[in-house]
Amino acid sequence: MTATLKQVAERAGVHPGTASRALNPATQALVSEQTVRRVQAAAKALAYRPNSMARGLKTNRTTMVGIVVPDLSNPLFPPIVRGAEEVLSRSGYTCLIADTDNDAERERESFETLRARQVDGLIIASALRDDAAVREAAAQGLPMVLINRRDDQARLPAVTGDDRDGIEQAVRHLVGLGHRRIAHLAGPSSLSTGADRARAFRHLVAELCGPDATDMVEECRAYAVDEGARAARALLDRAGPPPTAVVAGNDQIAIGVLDVLRERGLRCPQDMSVVGYNDMPFVDKLSPPLTTVRVPHAQIGAEAARLLIRWVGGDSSAPTTTTLPVDLVVRGSTAAPAS
Amino acid sequence: MTATLKQVAERAGVHPGTASRALNPATQALVSEQTVRRVQAAAKALAYRPNSMARGLKTNRTTMVGIVVPDLSNPLFPPIVRGAEEVLSRSGYTCLIADTDNDAERERESFETLRARQVDGLIIASALRDDAAVREAAAQGLPMVLINRRDDQARLPAVTGDDRDGIEQAVRHLVGLGHRRIAHLAGPSSLSTGADRARAFRHLVAELCGPDATDMVEECRAYAVDEGARAARALLDRAGPPPTAVVAGNDQIAIGVLDVLRERGLRCPQDMSVVGYNDMPFVDKLSPPLTTVRVPHAQIGAEAARLLIRWVGGDSSAPTTTTLPVDLVVRGSTAAPAS
Repeated sequence: MTATLKQVAERAGVHPGTASRALNPATQALVSEQTVRRVQAAAKALAYRPNSMARGLKTNRTTMVGIVVPDLSNPLFPPIVRGAEEVLSRSGYTCLIADTDNDAERERESFETLRARQVDGLIIASALRDDAAVREAAAQGLPMVLINRRDDQARLPAVTGDDRDGIEQAVRHLVGLGHRRIAHLAGPSSLSTGADRARAFRHLVAELCGPDATDMVEECRAYAVDEGARAARALLDRAGPPPTAVVAGNDQIAIGVLDVLRERGLRCPQDMSVVGYNDMPFVDKLSPPLTTVRVPHAQIGAEAARLLIRWVGGDSSAPTTTTLPVDLVVRGSTAAPAS
Repeated sequence: MTATLKQVAERAGVHPGTASRALNPATQALVSEQTVRRVQAAAKALAYRPNSMARGLKTNRTTMVGIVVPDLSNPLFPPIVRGAEEVLSRSGYTCLIADTDNDAERERESFETLRARQVDGLIIASALRDDAAVREAAAQGLPMVLINRRDDQARLPAVTGDDRDGIEQAVRHLVGLGHRRIAHLAGPSSLSTGADRARAFRHLVAELCGPDATDMVEECRAYAVDEGARAARALLDRAGPPPTAVVAGNDQIAIGVLDVLRERGLRCPQDMSVVGYNDMPFVDKLSPPLTTVRVPHAQIGAEAARLLIRWVGGDSSAPTTTTLPVDLVVRGSTAAPAS
């Protein structure tokens, strides 16, 4: 067995990223001379041979990768960024992070800036389903991986949670508890997460509760607490019997629903069950603790980083869609409907 | 009145950061030729004259700034990063973000990597009170601004919330409600936030409740829910009358306290009042909603960015400490003690 980069790094007492840079002629200048000598000595002692296929292409690289997020203050994105950053830094890449503030013009700006910085590739969490800026950037041939959200037309690798299965687990859980009037407060239909979850909801509810059961869907204009509250009020103000359960497009929307229930003197879960999506930090501390769909955000980031590194290394045969499994986490916000 | 860069950008239909790069010979190559021409035409039409003092020094710059955070998945840090990033990108800088995972070796690695990338300066949120890596980096003359946490010995500009005043507002609120046996679950004493808040607590409690009242302090080894729970159990397991109120070193520690109260069948606030620190997202949705100290994280990031830009621009007369005001937000987790 030949030695791994990790073993070389351990012997030299440095981080694997440093060892990688020290051994790569293209990036050696990024490391102190002393460190280069120490790592080279360790590599020699362990008879380490770098993976030549990957190395052969390692010219003209900046070993910088851009990560574009729509809103870093949304608790969803830091674990994605962190997961990607860990994989990338272990391979000697540094991350440039851009926050588009959910603004198409700023997204375009970010792509321009990052390309101008000559990044080797991009990881993009900000894609709309129809995103001209993403397609223009992709057309220039820069390796790009989408995460969390897909673009319907750009033929780019995308790494997402299994949105359809997540919604199905939520709906089956509610139907199993006895619910038949189930509503969905969908995320924006301009985003793949919003559209895919709403479609999965309609299909399964039609199948399990009958075709008439599918009209209790309200769309939120953003994944935000106040939009969740607005949509919840619209739902409760409709004529006819109210739903006994709500599947929210994400946790922030679910929190908006909980606020409106409290405002109207309704109890969760006794008067209405609520399911969130994402399992963001501390939703287990809400009152009641939120039943939600756990998405492996760190793994999504890590997987996207691995695909990007492969592509930058010359292997552009990456799968176009990678879907990671999600899990319903049942907590106190769901129960059998009052009979 | 002369035109501003912002007006030029608006006329050219581009972001101010793009306009800045287009007008600066050192960074023009980062922008498309077409954009450069459009911005130059707008500048000419508006008779725009760049600030020559700042421009005079704008050579040999990469217009990249490194931001080093200890843990991006702690909800505290994204708003700081975002606040800094907004100010920096408006001035044409791109941010390199490094996450040290609260690890001294990774912090040192990050400094090395960022220096190797020839960043123009660093914003550092990961400083220990005694941080050799920070001092070594500072000794090399790179402009650096500390945020949130200070290093006791590095004479670097630091932008923080007013930790002393935050704790004083919390303690005065509890004393005003009638509490006299008040405990503090301190953050790590290796961090300025932990040490400064604990010191402020001891001083004020001695003054308001007598010198014997200051021994109810437990130190947490990390700003984390499980450490808050561990310290809360240690506090409740002490001999003698338990405290009627706890000031937690931050919100995560406070959440650990709430967990332990529930585990022991104690009610908050009836049996014990709890105050957090930071007002991180969604602590207003806890049960009970958390009374906490709101820290202006986005402004801290923005102010640090402004200081760094000044320094990079040649003005190294930055104040060594900038302290931003904080506000106690009173919610349901504090009440008068049971008499």
